[in-house]
Amino acid sequence: MTKFDEATQAVRVDDTTYDVCLDPGYSIGGPLNGGYLMAVLLRAVTDDSPHAHPVSTAAQFLRAPRPGPAQVRLERLKAGRTAAMTRASLVQDGTSYLETLVTTATLGEGPADWSAGPPAMPPVEECVRLPDPRPESGMTLSERMELRFDPPTVGWLTGAPTGRPESRAYFRLAEPQDPDPFVLALAVDALPPVVFSAGARGWAPTVELTWHLRALPAPGWLAVVGHGRLVRDGWFDEDIEIWDAAGRLVAQSRQLARLGRG
Amino acid sequence: MTKFDEATQAVRVDDTTYDVCLDPGYSIGGPLNGGYLMAVLLRAVTDDSPHAHPVSTAAQFLRAPRPGPAQVRLERLKAGRTAAMTRASLVQDGTSYLETLVTTATLGEGPADWSAGPPAMPPVEECVRLPDPRPESGMTLSERMELRFDPPTVGWLTGAPTGRPESRAYFRLAEPQDPDPFVLALAVDALPPVVFSAGARGWAPTVELTWHLRALPAPGWLAVVGHGRLVRDGWFDEDIEIWDAAGRLVAQSRQLARLGRG
Repeated sequence: MTKFDEATQAVRVDDTTYDVCLDPGYSIGGPLNGGYLMAVLLRAVTDDSPHAHPVSTAAQFLRAPRPGPAQVRLERLKAGRTAAMTRASLVQDGTSYLETLVTTATLGEGPADWSAGPPAMPPVEECVRLPDPRPESGMTLSERMELRFDPPTVGWLTGAPTGRPESRAYFRLAEPQDPDPFVLALAVDALPPVVFSAGARGWAPTVELTWHLRALPAPGWLAVVGHGRLVRDGWFDEDIEIWDAAGRLVAQSRQLARLGRG
Repeated sequence: MTKFDEATQAVRVDDTTYDVCLDPGYSIGGPLNGGYLMAVLLRAVTDDSPHAHPVSTAAQFLRAPRPGPAQVRLERLKAGRTAAMTRASLVQDGTSYLETLVTTATLGEGPADWSAGPPAMPPVEECVRLPDPRPESGMTLSERMELRFDPPTVGWLTGAPTGRPESRAYFRLAEPQDPDPFVLALAVDALPPVVFSAGARGWAPTVELTWHLRALPAPGWLAVVGHGRLVRDGWFDEDIEIWDAAGRLVAQSRQLARLGRG
């Protein structure tokens, strides 16, 4: 079992409850990463579902849970032949921290009927790492994954932001593990906020994030391509596409988040 | 009171329940339009919230409700200074038809800090109506709103689809009413499915739709601009932006839907 599989384990307690343990290794400087929390919750939902794949997950981030024991509470809303629908909540000490509506289905292996073209990304060899975060920053998540950034989209680090909300990187787990739907849940929320390239700073808390699994990812690097359309009144959107090593669109997400005050 | 305001009325019964009446005038050939159902539900959520505007709505479409009496059931998840979060369900005869997670906040009037450019749309005078649907089709929704289509995106009607999933039109209610957040909820699901331009046909049921209100719309026509990124394995995505008459991005949505069998 990989570290990621272990950190996202969900153990069935009864018909509506799974026990989980939130791992401090997925912290982004205090709070746990939202994508990691979704992965934990989706382990419980898919285990309980007659269908294998979380094709749609809408998540509302209410509060930041602490590392340690928590529960996933499930409410089965509908179980159809094509898809099943579940409400799932991440609960700690009786309080809900993350509310979701999840649709599960069983995705086939076939080709696309129609697809947009893949994003323009330089080869991974021409992309760059970020410097390791200072140990006191509590960014333990960065040890769990490898990111190689399209250079202009980390220009903000050296005082040269592109001036547009955007972020692009290749992603894989630091340990040898092929991507799967749970890894994709982590990857849709793994990049620095797109607004850093537009000059913003500070922690940008996600309020709502919806993502769709469109195909099962091939082994290898994932290209994670993000942009925003509007920064206004303290709110911004972040739109992410994930393309796999076989050049297929495997996941789409959009989050609505608050601008940091940093 | 306009017909739309009347058809989306929600009357408070108690702390967690609103009575509503689903109007057969918003039918799309049998089922009621999903955007209309969201508008009804958001009337209850915003009435109950300390905040005025539904900034984020994630909706899971479980079943198609019948016209007539129904209830909106609310569960308050969090009420913060910046935003409040609510779970709201549309219930008929004790069964849930539509599940949502809604975030309300109070949007300001100021300009954008950063915005993508407006879409390339021909002027409204160069856009076209669709022929009135046959009365027996039950498309009563089309009497409630006016749409003027960017001509290539209705080429599918005359055997000349563009070959890409896309749909673009100006939108306003048929009765004199300025757009507001509830009208936007209708507008994000008002166009023919984007996949009609890619050669698909038949009713394309929405499984999940998340939309964000980004600014309060100015009076006048709304430009509704839709496209898709992937059609695969019976599923497609439809991404909509709505731009108001003042040239501002006021709403964003994405839905995951099933391909029709028509």
